[in-house]
Amino acid sequence: MVSSDVKVLGTTTCPYANRVEIALNLKSVDYEFLEETFPSKSELLLKSNPVHKKIPVMIHGEKPICESLIIVQYIDGAWIGGPSILPSDPYDQATARFWAAYVDDKWWPTLNGLRKAEGEEAKGAAIEQFMDALMPLEDALAKCGKGKDFFGGDTIGYVDIALGSFLGWLRAVEKMADVKLLDETKTPGLFGWAERFVSKADAKDVIPEADKIVKMIAAQAKAQ
Amino acid sequence: MVSSDVKVLGTTTCPYANRVEIALNLKSVDYEFLEETFPSKSELLLKSNPVHKKIPVMIHGEKPICESLIIVQYIDGAWIGGPSILPSDPYDQATARFWAAYVDDKWWPTLNGLRKAEGEEAKGAAIEQFMDALMPLEDALAKCGKGKDFFGGDTIGYVDIALGSFLGWLRAVEKMADVKLLDETKTPGLFGWAERFVSKADAKDVIPEADKIVKMIAAQAKAQ
Repeated sequence: MVSSDVKVLGTTTCPYANRVEIALNLKSVDYEFLEETFPSKSELLLKSNPVHKKIPVMIHGEKPICESLIIVQYIDGAWIGGPSILPSDPYDQATARFWAAYVDDKWWPTLNGLRKAEGEEAKGAAIEQFMDALMPLEDALAKCGKGKDFFGGDTIGYVDIALGSFLGWLRAVEKMADVKLLDETKTPGLFGWAERFVSKADAKDVIPEADKIVKMIAAQAKAQ
Repeated sequence: MVSSDVKVLGTTTCPYANRVEIALNLKSVDYEFLEETFPSKSELLLKSNPVHKKIPVMIHGEKPICESLIIVQYIDGAWIGGPSILPSDPYDQATARFWAAYVDDKWWPTLNGLRKAEGEEAKGAAIEQFMDALMPLEDALAKCGKGKDFFGGDTIGYVDIALGSFLGWLRAVEKMADVKLLDETKTPGLFGWAERFVSKADAKDVIPEADKIVKMIAAQAKAQ
């Protein structure tokens, strides 16, 4: 697989683009990262994702694939030589898909809500909502991972990628809101998992530093 | 496969539950349909889907699976003897997942918006939005199905189930809003496809009659 065969259109602070990079790293696939600059969108992006016009897009050869979790599943199916991202058992697969969808549909909106909360009362309510959405993931880690290091067991899997891609943002929101969201007492499983995930070679160069995200959010707010 | 091994928790007018039934029919799997009555929810539903507490849920043996498209993918993986629902090629799989997600995230909200639109102006705008969301599916049918009868080619596949499950609702909205949403001129591909889909044995006993949905919506409105 030569480098130019796979292109990823994204930004380095976009968790959805980060998912694609982590999945490609897991499979030891070289890729070219094409940084999009907003608000303008590249011709290649508009051509590759005419329906949604959004990142990430992965182009494999001439073929564009859109939507981060769909791309991750594609990567798992297209490079079967590397470690499996989704479990092979259909029920375990369904469970992994369920929790990845939960991360996007139920959990991430609460982290984003906390980021935007203004005033102590709103912040308190947002933290409560975040914790309510987080706790099922603490249970899911134990069940999916069967007590091992990751949702995927011994190695990073589908739910690890889905949730782990938000860890830079989680650290950024912790800084911005001056709050600790993963702690050893309330969520001991996720606390240890997060440390392990960001230490993994395939993820650590991809997950952005919290400060980078904080700066990016501040710059965006200023531009509006 | 004995009947009691597979249970589907849903309602007969719920398109998401209908997806599960059609997928099971395609695989010739017998199932027991357990009708939920709202607003109360059965103990079995609450126990089987504690996170979202919503239908459909499929219980296979003792194992509950939630979220309609995740269930359909599970069925495809668990009963590999029957016809394939998802294509085997990873890129075709990604394309099918893309359009199924499009149906849920972009297209269905416009049909539901049209259902709720009040007054001629709002109705006109809603029809326009619906048509804008529909046209990409006309193209997708030609591309995914490669000119054959269904998105899945010669047989009903993943996108057929995702979109086809809404055909009863589409017919109901056509009646309620007194408008023709699929016609031979604007969307000749989808017009023919819809006729073929609802005629297929695996779908025709599942897709509810438009009048049944109209009555259900009227009863719901009255109850509120």
